[in-house]
Amino acid sequence: MNADEFVAGILAGNRGVLARAITLVESSRPDHQELAENILDRCLGFDSVRAGITGVPGVGKSTFIERLGLHLTQDRGEKVAVLAIDPSSPVSGGSILGDKTRMQKLSADPNAFIRPSPSRGALGGVTRRTRETILLCEAAGFSNILVETVGVGQSEMTVASMVDFFLLLMLAGAGDELQAIKRGILEVTDLVAINKADGDNLHAAQLARSEYASAIGPDKVVLCSAMTGAGIPEIWIRVLEHGKAARADQASRWLYDAIDNGLHERFFQNPAVKDLLPKLEAAVSAGELTAVRAARQLLDQSRG
Amino acid sequence: MNADEFVAGILAGNRGVLARAITLVESSRPDHQELAENILDRCLGFDSVRAGITGVPGVGKSTFIERLGLHLTQDRGEKVAVLAIDPSSPVSGGSILGDKTRMQKLSADPNAFIRPSPSRGALGGVTRRTRETILLCEAAGFSNILVETVGVGQSEMTVASMVDFFLLLMLAGAGDELQAIKRGILEVTDLVAINKADGDNLHAAQLARSEYASAIGPDKVVLCSAMTGAGIPEIWIRVLEHGKAARADQASRWLYDAIDNGLHERFFQNPAVKDLLPKLEAAVSAGELTAVRAARQLLDQSRG
Repeated sequence: MNADEFVAGILAGNRGVLARAITLVESSRPDHQELAENILDRCLGFDSVRAGITGVPGVGKSTFIERLGLHLTQDRGEKVAVLAIDPSSPVSGGSILGDKTRMQKLSADPNAFIRPSPSRGALGGVTRRTRETILLCEAAGFSNILVETVGVGQSEMTVASMVDFFLLLMLAGAGDELQAIKRGILEVTDLVAINKADGDNLHAAQLARSEYASAIGPDKVVLCSAMTGAGIPEIWIRVLEHGKAARADQASRWLYDAIDNGLHERFFQNPAVKDLLPKLEAAVSAGELTAVRAARQLLDQSRG
Repeated sequence: MNADEFVAGILAGNRGVLARAITLVESSRPDHQELAENILDRCLGFDSVRAGITGVPGVGKSTFIERLGLHLTQDRGEKVAVLAIDPSSPVSGGSILGDKTRMQKLSADPNAFIRPSPSRGALGGVTRRTRETILLCEAAGFSNILVETVGVGQSEMTVASMVDFFLLLMLAGAGDELQAIKRGILEVTDLVAINKADGDNLHAAQLARSEYASAIGPDKVVLCSAMTGAGIPEIWIRVLEHGKAARADQASRWLYDAIDNGLHERFFQNPAVKDLLPKLEAAVSAGELTAVRAARQLLDQSRG
């Protein structure tokens, strides 16, 4: 399939073609990358409502996203793409979507597109591939994009920079959990939703809500139940009311991230650097050499 | 003064020579930088207890640090260096230490050394200069280093990576303040001290302590009064009990930061990049070009 065929398929909303184009984006083969860039060049200019959703394992993310996705497709008659980033999984189709029973109903919905975004360890890779995948999904008519991450790493900060709204799912049992939230996730969170606020758990969820509210502000905490669907339409209204982040800013940031990734890739792949770095790092760690001098030596080597 | 004279003065604990060496470290003149590197090479191998202290303006940081500093010099008979980083102040001797009434007693103490660390806007610069200043102070026999930052930026994360213990000063009035803490400061905080826990304010401080404790854990919140000195010896015991961070890890991180700074400096100073970047950034922001393609073009140009 050539670039023309890919672009035609994507613009027609063909999910199979979209999936294959994303595979190109994810590939590290130079010919794949070149084809992917040619496709991307012609898929610019579309847009969507982009929401990031995170929460630790067990919080009910899959059920929540399925409910929210079905709300978008069935109640609102829209299309939704779900992109899942799992930094702990180095291979395509990693653990986050490995379970085939996950989001069964949404998977079968013709207006939904679900896709894991493998990370191969490099966070820069996540950024680049996820951003490009978002562009392709938008070109394919998916006017809502949900980017899912496991709430345990730095990927949240990266995802927050490419979405309009960042939602943190939590459970009752406030103190410990809030403490476990890492690396400034609260800082980038637009809304905390306490999930499983149903049945016997409702009272505990209400208490947790008060606790969170005193720590992060009462306007930023809501209750929901992915199981019953309670609270989910209201959460989406919050997303829509919040409005879209400035796309020009996001694109600028994307450029600087891409420059950063490129600088690192070229530097650390440089044979002279690869050879010298371990020796100099050992010397710096042993306190025999200042880091600045070691860095200068490496930078000079990488040019030669 | 040549490198030999600088090194001799520093190792003898001469505060005037130390101050002049730090000025060299902070200078961007190539000859100063070269001299500074030669001095640093011979000031390696010393160590100290390194503590970072932050808090928003008004929390009483100066009074707290003066009290803690005097506790170290007078009660414990040790030497202390206070390095203040103020990212909002672009010039040497910025606002953070501009007020001459600040830390009057500690300034007059022969076993104390107080020094602002101007940032000139670049955070990478803060990192490099502060780390090198720490090394020089250690070589001059300052066995305790307090690194002070204003609690409003990313500099906290940087400082946290170069100290053994990170202390966050707060006041009663929990919810709003906790919310105002930016960029994952809580994540890197080893201890929250609620200051001004004295007189009429004691009850409010105790209430605040409970609130913080439920959010971040009861072991991580203490009360103190910089005015009366209450709680300050206990805080320093926490610092000592916490132990030193692994120096080899810190040095490694320092090397990678230095590489990062060098890569950026060389790239963004490149004339071809300076010329092309604004045009490509505009095209990316307008959605006419993917960031990855623009980045590749810039990276290729920077080589030629």
